[in-house]
Amino acid sequence: MNYSMVMYIVGWILNFEAAFMLPSCLVAVIYQEKCGISFLITMAAALVIGIPLTVRKPKNKDFHSREGFASVALGWIVLSIVGAVPFVISGVIPNPVEALFEAVSGFTTTGSSVLTNVEVVPRCILFWRSFTHWIGGMGVLVFIMAILPLSGGKNINLMRAESPGPSVTKMTSKIKSTAKVLYQIYIVMTIIQIILLLTGKMPLFDALTITFGTAGTGGFGIKNDSLAGYSPYLQYVVTTFMILFGVNFNFYFLLLLKKPIEALKSEEVRWYFGIIAAAVLVIFLYIRSSYPTAEEAFRHSAFQVGSIITTTGYATTDFNLWAQVPRTILVMLMFVGACAGSTGGGIKVSRILILGKTIRKELNQLVHPTGVKKLQMDGRLISHEVLRAANVYMIIYILIFAFSVLLVGIDDFDLVTNFTAVATTLNNVGPGLEMVGPTGNFSAFSNGTTLVMIFDMLAGRLELFPLLLLFHPGAWKKF
Amino acid sequence: MNYSMVMYIVGWILNFEAAFMLPSCLVAVIYQEKCGISFLITMAAALVIGIPLTVRKPKNKDFHSREGFASVALGWIVLSIVGAVPFVISGVIPNPVEALFEAVSGFTTTGSSVLTNVEVVPRCILFWRSFTHWIGGMGVLVFIMAILPLSGGKNINLMRAESPGPSVTKMTSKIKSTAKVLYQIYIVMTIIQIILLLTGKMPLFDALTITFGTAGTGGFGIKNDSLAGYSPYLQYVVTTFMILFGVNFNFYFLLLLKKPIEALKSEEVRWYFGIIAAAVLVIFLYIRSSYPTAEEAFRHSAFQVGSIITTTGYATTDFNLWAQVPRTILVMLMFVGACAGSTGGGIKVSRILILGKTIRKELNQLVHPTGVKKLQMDGRLISHEVLRAANVYMIIYILIFAFSVLLVGIDDFDLVTNFTAVATTLNNVGPGLEMVGPTGNFSAFSNGTTLVMIFDMLAGRLELFPLLLLFHPGAWKKF
Repeated sequence: MNYSMVMYIVGWILNFEAAFMLPSCLVAVIYQEKCGISFLITMAAALVIGIPLTVRKPKNKDFHSREGFASVALGWIVLSIVGAVPFVISGVIPNPVEALFEAVSGFTTTGSSVLTNVEVVPRCILFWRSFTHWIGGMGVLVFIMAILPLSGGKNINLMRAESPGPSVTKMTSKIKSTAKVLYQIYIVMTIIQIILLLTGKMPLFDALTITFGTAGTGGFGIKNDSLAGYSPYLQYVVTTFMILFGVNFNFYFLLLLKKPIEALKSEEVRWYFGIIAAAVLVIFLYIRSSYPTAEEAFRHSAFQVGSIITTTGYATTDFNLWAQVPRTILVMLMFVGACAGSTGGGIKVSRILILGKTIRKELNQLVHPTGVKKLQMDGRLISHEVLRAANVYMIIYILIFAFSVLLVGIDDFDLVTNFTAVATTLNNVGPGLEMVGPTGNFSAFSNGTTLVMIFDMLAGRLELFPLLLLFHPGAWKKF
Repeated sequence: MNYSMVMYIVGWILNFEAAFMLPSCLVAVIYQEKCGISFLITMAAALVIGIPLTVRKPKNKDFHSREGFASVALGWIVLSIVGAVPFVISGVIPNPVEALFEAVSGFTTTGSSVLTNVEVVPRCILFWRSFTHWIGGMGVLVFIMAILPLSGGKNINLMRAESPGPSVTKMTSKIKSTAKVLYQIYIVMTIIQIILLLTGKMPLFDALTITFGTAGTGGFGIKNDSLAGYSPYLQYVVTTFMILFGVNFNFYFLLLLKKPIEALKSEEVRWYFGIIAAAVLVIFLYIRSSYPTAEEAFRHSAFQVGSIITTTGYATTDFNLWAQVPRTILVMLMFVGACAGSTGGGIKVSRILILGKTIRKELNQLVHPTGVKKLQMDGRLISHEVLRAANVYMIIYILIFAFSVLLVGIDDFDLVTNFTAVATTLNNVGPGLEMVGPTGNFSAFSNGTTLVMIFDMLAGRLELFPLLLLFHPGAWKKF
C-alpha cells in the first residue's frame, strides 16, 4: 500500500471540505445565526490537518486499484467525521454517533435523519445538510480530480472506486476532462432546477436546499412533511428532476455531443424509464380511490416512484399508509435503484440488466447446449470481468444486508422497521416503512445499531468493495 | 424435446404414486375410516393413465439435460395433482387449489398447511400427508431409478435435475446403484428413528408420521401444537434426526465405505454443524430468561434451529413470540438451508460456501492483482461451471423471491407475513412468522396467492431451473 499517496488524497479532501463549508458560513451571516461559528471551528481544524498533508506531493507515484479503493474509503470516512463536527458543536445533534449518522446520510445522499423536528434547526445547519448531498452525489474525489492533477494517469482507479455502477465509461480520453464534463452537466442541471423552482414562487433558501437534495438524490427535507406542503407545480418539477438526475450522465454527454441516436440506444436508460412507467401505473391504479382527484393520485404515485427508484427519498404523502402491493413495489424499487453513472444509489438498473441477461443465457444453454451466445449490452459484448463483478457484488450485497438486519434487530423494533431501515440505508434511499417511514425518523435506534447503518450507507454509496477492503489484512501490507 | 421419453417417465411416476397410496389404504382399513375409498379412486385413475404410457419403452432414447429437467418438472406437477385428489374427494380440503397446496407442500417437504385443525382429520389422510414428505425427501425419480433402468446411462440428467445442491456426486460409477445406496441409507435411518421414538413410548402412528416428516425434512404435524406436547426425550430424538437428515448423504456413504477421515474433511458438513452450534448458542442466550430452566431453553433453541436450518418446520414452542434477534436468526437459517445432497431445502450450505469463497477470492484479487488462486472445496478445484451455476442460482432465486413477495402482497396481509410466507415456501421450510407462524396456517390466502406459493415450493424443491425451463418457449421445440 502506498500510504503517502493515500494520505495526500485524504489531505486534499480535508482542504476541500473546509472550502465546502464556506456557503454555510455565508448563510449563518445572512440569517445572523450564532451557530455559524461551529463551521469556522471545523474549517480551521480541517485545514490544520489537511494543509500539512498536501504541501508536498509524494515521490512514490504508485497508484493501483488497491490505493484507489483505500483512498476512497478512508477519504469518505474522514469527510463524514469532519462533516459531523458542526452538528455536535452547534448542539443540534449532541450525540456524536447520531451526528456522524446525519453526516454520512448527507454525503452518501441517503437522506435518513435522526432529527425529529427539522423546522427548529438553524438555517446554516439545514443548508450544510443539504449541501452535503450535492457534494456526495457526484463524488468529492471526482470533484477534486476535476480541479487537481492527483495521481497522473492512474486517476481511473480513484474514479472507478467512487463512481457507482458496474463499469466506468471514460467519456473522454483524459480522466480529468471526464470529471470536468460530469460536474459541468451536474451544475447546469442544478441551476435549471433552481430557476424552475423559483419560477413557482418557492423561497430561495428552499429552492437551493431542495435542489441540492434532488441533484444528489439525497432527500434531506427542510420541512417536517418533506415536500407535501408545496404546490403541485413545484412537486412536478422535483419529480422530473429526481428522475433526470437518476439517468446515466453518459446519456447527457452523448446528447451534448449531438449523438441522440446513440444516447437512446442505451438499454439501461430505456429500462429505467420503463420500470418507472410501469411502477407509476400500478401504484396509481392501487391508490386512485384514496385521493380526491386522479391528478393527485397520479402526482403522488409519480413523485414517490421517482423519489424511491432514484433513491432520493423526498415524500409528498405518507406512503407507509398505502396497501401492501404499492408498499412492496416501493421497497423493490429501493433495491433496483437508479442508473449507473448517475447520482442515485441502489443496485443500479444496469447491474440488474446484466444479471437478467445472465439468467436468459443460462436457460438458453440448457435448451440448446451447443449454441452458446455471448452476452451483449448496448450492442457491445459484456466482458467476463464485468459479469463476474456484478455477480460478486450481489452476493456481498446479500450478506451485508442479512447481517445488518440481524444486528439492527438487537434494538427489538418490528421486523418491517428493521428490514426497511437496512434497505433504505444500504441503498441510500432515506425513508423506509413503519417507524422509519416518511413521517418517522432514525432517532430511536441505539448507538450500536446506528453504527451498523452508518456502515451500510457508506458501503452502499461506495458499492461495497472499498469498505470491505479496509477489513482485509492484506490491504495494509507495504509492498 | 424427446416427448416420448418424458411421457414414459411421467407414466412411471403415476404408477408408482398409485403404489405409494397403498399404505394409506391400509391405515384406513385399520382405523375403519371411510375416506380410504378416496385413495382407491385416485389409484385407479392414476393407473388408467400411467399403465398405457409405460407399456412400451420409447425407441428414441435421446435424453439430455433438457429432457431431464422437463421430466422432473412435469413429473412433480403430475405427482402433486394426483396426490391432491384424495384431499378433495375425502372432503378434508374441498378447495382444489388448497388441496394442491397441501400436496405440493407435502412432496416438496415444505410442511406449510392450509388445515386449521389437524386433530379432526382422518388418520389415513394424515398418514398420506406425512408419507408424501418421505417420498419427496429423497426424490421420487431417484426412487424409480433405484428400481427401473429408465434411460440407460443418461440417468445422471434426471438425478441432477431432481437432487438438491450445486453438484451431484456420483457415489458409485452407476447411477442406479447410487440411487439404491441413497435409499438404503434413507430407509435404515428412518427405521432407527422409528425405533427410538417407540422406545420413548410414542404411539406407533405418531412415530411413523413424525419420522416421515423428519426424514424428508417436511414438517407436517399430526397435532395442532406440532411437537410441543411430547416428552423432552422424544423432542431430543427428533432434534437429532432432523439435523442428521440435513447432512449430505455422501458423508454417510463415506462412513459406510469406512473412510471416516475423508468424510470429516467435508467443508460443507463442518460448516453446517458450526452454523447450528452458533445459532443454538445465541438463541439460547436470548431466550434463557423466558423459560423456567436452562435445559428447556436449550432444548427449544436446539429444536427450533435444527428444525429451521434443515427446513423441516416442526416446532416445540411459538418462536413467533421470541425477540427480533432470535426471530431474525431463524429467518436467516431458512435461507441457508441444509447440506446439498440431503433431504433439506433452502439455498444449501455448500452453495453459500462457494459464494463466500468467491468473495474472498475477489477481495484477494484487489489486494494482489497478480497472484490469482483458483477456488477449492474439500481440497478439489471448484469448476467454472459450478461457480457460474451457483451465481445464476442466487440471481434467479432473488428475482423469484422479490416477485413472489409482491404478488403475495395482493392479499394485503402484513409485510412480515408476506415476506416469511414466501421465504418459508421457497425454502421448503413450513412455518413463517406472524400469521403463518408455528401456531398459524396458510388457509387465509386467496387462490391466486396460494398458486404463487405452490410455484415457489416446487421451484425451491427442484432448485428453480426445471420449473423456469417450462416457461422457455425453446424447450418445447422438437429437435
